[in-house]
Amino acid sequence: MMGYSFMSSTLINWICISCVSSSLTLIWLHYGKKRTKNSTKVLFYNPVIKSTNCNCRNSFDFNCSSPNCSSIKTKEIILCLRKAKKSIDICVFAISNKPISNEVVAAHQRGILIRIIISNCILVYSHEVKMFLEIGIKIKYQENRDTSYMHNKFAIVDSTWLIQGSMNWTHQATYGNWESVIITDLQSLIIPFSIGFEKIWEKTILVPIT
Amino acid sequence: MMGYSFMSSTLINWICISCVSSSLTLIWLHYGKKRTKNSTKVLFYNPVIKSTNCNCRNSFDFNCSSPNCSSIKTKEIILCLRKAKKSIDICVFAISNKPISNEVVAAHQRGILIRIIISNCILVYSHEVKMFLEIGIKIKYQENRDTSYMHNKFAIVDSTWLIQGSMNWTHQATYGNWESVIITDLQSLIIPFSIGFEKIWEKTILVPIT
Repeated sequence: MMGYSFMSSTLINWICISCVSSSLTLIWLHYGKKRTKNSTKVLFYNPVIKSTNCNCRNSFDFNCSSPNCSSIKTKEIILCLRKAKKSIDICVFAISNKPISNEVVAAHQRGILIRIIISNCILVYSHEVKMFLEIGIKIKYQENRDTSYMHNKFAIVDSTWLIQGSMNWTHQATYGNWESVIITDLQSLIIPFSIGFEKIWEKTILVPIT
Repeated sequence: MMGYSFMSSTLINWICISCVSSSLTLIWLHYGKKRTKNSTKVLFYNPVIKSTNCNCRNSFDFNCSSPNCSSIKTKEIILCLRKAKKSIDICVFAISNKPISNEVVAAHQRGILIRIIISNCILVYSHEVKMFLEIGIKIKYQENRDTSYMHNKFAIVDSTWLIQGSMNWTHQATYGNWESVIITDLQSLIIPFSIGFEKIWEKTILVPIT
């Protein structure tokens, strides 16, 4: 009896230890994976919109059901900007896309810190840039250069999301061109782009208010 | 009783060994994944080169030691193209950067399958595009459109590396502009860009040889 009890308790101890260790390992792996799981989307724009029967080129429809509609792709950018809780840093050649710029204004109005860097092209005083300046958003641009452009096209939301690609934030780009845009929370991309933004911000000057 | 205890202890020992070995396997797999960590670089170009004392704007130096030299950043793109063992798919608005286009030619000459998509702009018949056509590289461009551009700027090497960003593969972009370029082996980016390339390749037409 003594032998049986001793063996049983030893065995049960082993079972318990094993089960607990296995469970802990699985839980650790599960949450570890969840923690490091990234979300990445790639949007491919093309000018197919012209041949579809939607009207988004003229009036943006957040719920357009037409195939390949550029508004549905732009919606992803807008939803990403809408996630902002602290800051949005934008560094793009030009901004003239209304739905996107309206979202930037809405973010500013709910207290999000907005910083924008644009090029020194004619779009410095586009309708959208004027609107940003009027409501107090800080905009910088490169010093006037004849042969160089601030040609970057990226934005960082809350140090958590990166929007980056070939696309300027213009109506032409979103509805007229073949473009590609990455939206990701990969820190291996967000960190260098955040550092890059700060360096460009330092080297550019504030757009004067006319 | 002894028989029962012996059987139980053997069985339970086996269960314990299995559990422990399972845990160890899971941990090993977890660290195995960590071992296959991805490689990602982000290159930030800026026009600082003009104020440095190197001569790379006129003659590319693979080993230039000047700070912020664009040649050293372009070297990363060239070294990535040099890794190709099977294929290079390029989809950029324009190609006119000599060191990069020379590397494309070298890859073609060592049997790498090259496919290039460019825009329909005046650069269709740039010196570099003519050179590519002469040696038999397949180049496609979008059908002539007045108001749209194939504005993408990415390349895929062997379905293993993605080069992507704001930068056209031109001399102006590499030495004159503020640009950013990602070089990565992240499959979460390479897969959608590979699918995107095939779709654009289908929808574009071969550049006629004049």
